[in-house]
Amino acid sequence: MELIKDNFLLTTAKSKHLYQTIQNVPIYDFHCHLSPKEIYEDKNFSNITKLWLSHDHYKWRLMRAYGIDESLITGNGDDYEKFKAFMDMLPKTIMNPMYHWCYLELARYFNYYEPVQHTTPEKLYNYLNAKLQESSYSPRQLIERSNVKVICTTDDPCDNLKYHQLIKEDSTFNVSVHPTFRPDSYLTLNEKTIHTSIEKLNNATNQRIQTLDDYINALLIRIEYFHHHGARSSDQSFSELILTGLEKEKAESYFSSLKLGESLDSQSLKLLSGYILTELSKAYKKHGWVIQLHLGPLRNNNSIQLTNIGKDAGFDSIGDPLNAKELNALLDHLNVNDALSDTIIYPNNANDHLMVQATAGNFTSNKVKVQLGAAWWYNDTKEGMKQHLIDYANVGLLSQFVGMLTDSRSLLSYSRHEYFRRILCQLLGKLVEDGEIEDNQELLTGILKDICFNNAVRLFNIENIEEIK
Amino acid sequence: MELIKDNFLLTTAKSKHLYQTIQNVPIYDFHCHLSPKEIYEDKNFSNITKLWLSHDHYKWRLMRAYGIDESLITGNGDDYEKFKAFMDMLPKTIMNPMYHWCYLELARYFNYYEPVQHTTPEKLYNYLNAKLQESSYSPRQLIERSNVKVICTTDDPCDNLKYHQLIKEDSTFNVSVHPTFRPDSYLTLNEKTIHTSIEKLNNATNQRIQTLDDYINALLIRIEYFHHHGARSSDQSFSELILTGLEKEKAESYFSSLKLGESLDSQSLKLLSGYILTELSKAYKKHGWVIQLHLGPLRNNNSIQLTNIGKDAGFDSIGDPLNAKELNALLDHLNVNDALSDTIIYPNNANDHLMVQATAGNFTSNKVKVQLGAAWWYNDTKEGMKQHLIDYANVGLLSQFVGMLTDSRSLLSYSRHEYFRRILCQLLGKLVEDGEIEDNQELLTGILKDICFNNAVRLFNIENIEEIK
Amino acid sequence: MELIKDNFLLTTAKSKHLYQTIQNVPIYDFHCHLSPKEIYEDKNFSNITKLWLSHDHYKWRLMRAYGIDESLITGNGDDYEKFKAFMDMLPKTIMNPMYHWCYLELARYFNYYEPVQHTTPEKLYNYLNAKLQESSYSPRQLIERSNVKVICTTDDPCDNLKYHQLIKEDSTFNVSVHPTFRPDSYLTLNEKTIHTSIEKLNNATNQRIQTLDDYINALLIRIEYFHHHGARSSDQSFSELILTGLEKEKAESYFSSLKLGESLDSQSLKLLSGYILTELSKAYKKHGWVIQLHLGPLRNNNSIQLTNIGKDAGFDSIGDPLNAKELNALLDHLNVNDALSDTIIYPNNANDHLMVQATAGNFTSNKVKVQLGAAWWYNDTKEGMKQHLIDYANVGLLSQFVGMLTDSRSLLSYSRHEYFRRILCQLLGKLVEDGEIEDNQELLTGILKDICFNNAVRLFNIENIEEIK
Repeated sequence: MELIKDNFLLTTAKSKHLYQTIQNVPIYDFHCHLSPKEIYEDKNFSNITKLWLSHDHYKWRLMRAYGIDESLITGNGDDYEKFKAFMDMLPKTIMNPMYHWCYLELARYFNYYEPVQHTTPEKLYNYLNAKLQESSYSPRQLIERSNVKVICTTDDPCDNLKYHQLIKEDSTFNVSVHPTFRPDSYLTLNEKTIHTSIEKLNNATNQRIQTLDDYINALLIRIEYFHHHGARSSDQSFSELILTGLEKEKAESYFSSLKLGESLDSQSLKLLSGYILTELSKAYKKHGWVIQLHLGPLRNNNSIQLTNIGKDAGFDSIGDPLNAKELNALLDHLNVNDALSDTIIYPNNANDHLMVQATAGNFTSNKVKVQLGAAWWYNDTKEGMKQHLIDYANVGLLSQFVGMLTDSRSLLSYSRHEYFRRILCQLLGKLVEDGEIEDNQELLTGILKDICFNNAVRLFNIENIEEIK
Repeated sequence: MELIKDNFLLTTAKSKHLYQTIQNVPIYDFHCHLSPKEIYEDKNFSNITKLWLSHDHYKWRLMRAYGIDESLITGNGDDYEKFKAFMDMLPKTIMNPMYHWCYLELARYFNYYEPVQHTTPEKLYNYLNAKLQESSYSPRQLIERSNVKVICTTDDPCDNLKYHQLIKEDSTFNVSVHPTFRPDSYLTLNEKTIHTSIEKLNNATNQRIQTLDDYINALLIRIEYFHHHGARSSDQSFSELILTGLEKEKAESYFSSLKLGESLDSQSLKLLSGYILTELSKAYKKHGWVIQLHLGPLRNNNSIQLTNIGKDAGFDSIGDPLNAKELNALLDHLNVNDALSDTIIYPNNANDHLMVQATAGNFTSNKVKVQLGAAWWYNDTKEGMKQHLIDYANVGLLSQFVGMLTDSRSLLSYSRHEYFRRILCQLLGKLVEDGEIEDNQELLTGILKDICFNNAVRLFNIENIEEIK
Repeated sequence: MELIKDNFLLTTAKSKHLYQTIQNVPIYDFHCHLSPKEIYEDKNFSNITKLWLSHDHYKWRLMRAYGIDESLITGNGDDYEKFKAFMDMLPKTIMNPMYHWCYLELARYFNYYEPVQHTTPEKLYNYLNAKLQESSYSPRQLIERSNVKVICTTDDPCDNLKYHQLIKEDSTFNVSVHPTFRPDSYLTLNEKTIHTSIEKLNNATNQRIQTLDDYINALLIRIEYFHHHGARSSDQSFSELILTGLEKEKAESYFSSLKLGESLDSQSLKLLSGYILTELSKAYKKHGWVIQLHLGPLRNNNSIQLTNIGKDAGFDSIGDPLNAKELNALLDHLNVNDALSDTIIYPNNANDHLMVQATAGNFTSNKVKVQLGAAWWYNDTKEGMKQHLIDYANVGLLSQFVGMLTDSRSLLSYSRHEYFRRILCQLLGKLVEDGEIEDNQELLTGILKDICFNNAVRLFNIENIEEIK
């Protein structure tokens, strides 16, 4: 019995046909957390546990819910024991996206299609590990086999981008790898973190930052540096919306206070963030960059595990709905200050999809595209993606959607593009068969190719990346 | 290939049968933005662009998202060029309600069924414009052909209702056209707007308003005037809920402060609005009017375009969820003050549907009906309407639903009643076929006729409008 | 025509098969509002109105929406007239869960399957009343016929649990009936209610409470008492989240102020509640109890009817979404203070399902299970339960779900477990048939039995209650 059949998720003839026409469209991964070092060095993974379980907080959370001891999750347990524990759980993850994701990865990368109970964990472990030693399982080979044309990683503004440079210079690798400017820790300052941010910027720019002006200038230097190294996008993430409208003098004085170790209330901190982001956005716009905004998640909620394990360990969760007034105010402020680039907004709480897409429509035009981003994080599920597409289309133009990204640390996550495309084709194909959309192959294929690749080509406007026909 | 087939949106035999039994039920449009002057003067439209594109912010927003230049949206571009730009986009609006709405309007009013790419924009423009010159395309003919029995427009309290009077006196037009009292700008005052409101009321009532008492009295005079001219409903819209409980002395003093040009904080302004609304609501109740509340939208979010183009130009969007406590407090306050009429509440954020319907159930009784209104604005989509019906029914009685309205400036929007009815019949028919509802034609037809017409007849209680059998 | 057919709600062969395999799994009702006195005394109901309409605010709300006079709802109208009014409405409740619930109850307990219009209210009234006099319709017989193994009632901390004791001692009744510690009125204090709470605790514990320490000690004594009488769970309900982090000295002083009749602001009251709950939770954890949190409903919103009729009369409704930050802070605070037991969180607003389940995942582990509870109150509908299961599974492990409960005052509500199980089997069966879940009978039956019974056995860990095979 195979779980991942040819027609996986496709129940109508039209859906199947639509999927066939676009399954070979390449992948434009405009936001991920892959390591450029890992790509450059191109070393095979020593075993499946390293690849599957060493960075994946989605899997960790399920393993905790299943009752697995932390030593076999983030702890120093044996790699095989970790794998075994995960395999024991996998059949019980039905209806969680992990179930489909894992089986898609086993099918597409390892040619393995059976429910995992049909073999022993030991046999499967050995089988997968043996595969991983083959040359076609090196990071670069995995990427190329996934039909990826563009990768945009996520990088600290002070990163020297050495590996991006090395990848670029390596003519044997034909995938376009670009950095993304991710200034979060330089935007959300407080009296404790400000010194680290200043210090890192001092070092990266050979400046001696005294004032907020100096600080912003240093960031602008780094934007230039990133642009020179191929960046075409910035990415920002906040738990709550930052605020705009702070006057320059006030911003200077807040910055000075923090430098002196004085604390500010959260309102003032958000206003300072808004001031800095506005200044950076003017540079983003000048360079034609895309702004990505990942909004809403609450991070590090379990303080005991934050101490024990650290950040990004599976203790982040869905935050409150975004404030619609503040989101409008932020976009309007950027717009008024000639600082509104093409923008993609990813709310963390799916209840915000309609509101964000309606808000985006207040600012999108023939000059600037503002849109809701793909279903993010906890919403990146079959039902979540379907509902997201409906929400996107109901208050916007689906045909303009910039489409799927991986947002992943794992090379195997490229199979999620297949997952997305199947869900998209199933949705459209069903509507055609129900007579709700005209049965026009050219129109539909065009829209699908736009969503899967060409809209990203146009939006990010990266050199030498052409639209597909 | 026809897009709008006989069984459009109807996939089960029962759904088709239910729709057949109610498709000829007349339309009771208890809330729209049609111009009584346009109806009275009954002039044909000079071309399809004037009819379709000159007032429709739904279309404008999609055209912006598609990248069309503003000159061809709200600007002074050529009418044919505007139409051509819209036609170029239309096939790409799949899954947005605009796609179905346009094809329904083309089918029902112009006997045109093909995808628009099957002809040229020029041919179609000429075809539609030629039709529009026929006598059966005058506003009144369009209304009568739509099987409309009642129209309730939306009017400023100081409007002299001349055109309503003229329509009433014209025995050649058999549709009952009524004004609706819409006091928004008289309810949400500030130190800048208060003078205009006072001035307009002074003129309309020949009073000399000095105090809040005078002000409210003038509004009560206008309520009498509207009642005398056939109004049976008031309509109010707020971005955020207004607050109640302000004492009379405080209200008087807030009013005086505003008159003197002193500003008040937003809390005080909301309390003053609540005070005035309570006083008006006592009169509404005395007259047996229905209160309609349109709650939540954020307006004029793009300040550059507000300056360039003005209000109602497609820059309004979904606001935050309503505050459940405040909504309960408002309804309870009206109830305690013998000022709670039959009430229809339309939240702008679909996340509020269940909450509003549950709140309505706290105040509905054999004396007063309080209910969730039809899916509004951004929720007025196939999926949005279906989910709204489910939400309505799950925490209330679907059979009591007062049903669909157009909320539109366009005469062609009456085809949205067909859209609503098909969605409703598809939903119920499917449930019958799945064995979840008894297959009882009499029961179901009765409920459908109630939702589509009779519940509105009972609720608005307009003279000479009888229930259908 | 039968409404409740064998395959009610089951449309696929796999769904039907799954349901057959688990329909006879017993019921573990870990949260309800049944009266232990009623169970102990085991008196038959005098008529169907007493059983169906005398406590059911769900029915009352619908009757109000239908326009029935209050005298036939909560008033002193004739029992037959009340029944007749309800029967007149019942066919018009299609799509409200009441429709299915009533027909399920008529089918399962009264062997009545026809739409009620097929008979007269009088005949049906007599038929049902005659049945109710049969010995198999006594409370205990109804429970046993429903295949219930465990009942956890909801009890005031000062209740003497006499009837629980008597039921336990009665060897003729084989259902395990346990109290649940529900300290709401002892947790949310104000200057008016504090004296009653102190007085009741004084009496129940023979103490003389002076300080907050005394007060908490008295509650701890009651926890011991409840534990000794079989309690294995506490249940708390708040409209808004309580707050944590109050220092002991402050808490003492807040308590003293209230005792002296001084009022505190709502922030301080919530902090005091948080302090007391933390202290109680340490004891819950020591005893291995489960904490249930019912969060969000707004109560007694219609002040006129609160005066006329009283509490729990159908004037409670859905509150605002929960604050995600505060929920995380509460769970983290309990965790840090070694006071986080296994926890089930029921949000009242369905918009919170994903957020609560994601938050639960921050704290669940191999030591403590934290999870989203079953769809509650207004969400306890066919669509609401289906969406809840999807939400639960998408950000957690469905296989770990502790499952359905009745939360009801009515003995007939056990048929809602059948309703839940059919919805669950329909969902899973359809996914199997669509190829989205492996077709593995052993796996699926195991998961279904876990959700329907065994997960509750493990979580509540009540003596002598064994998992089923």
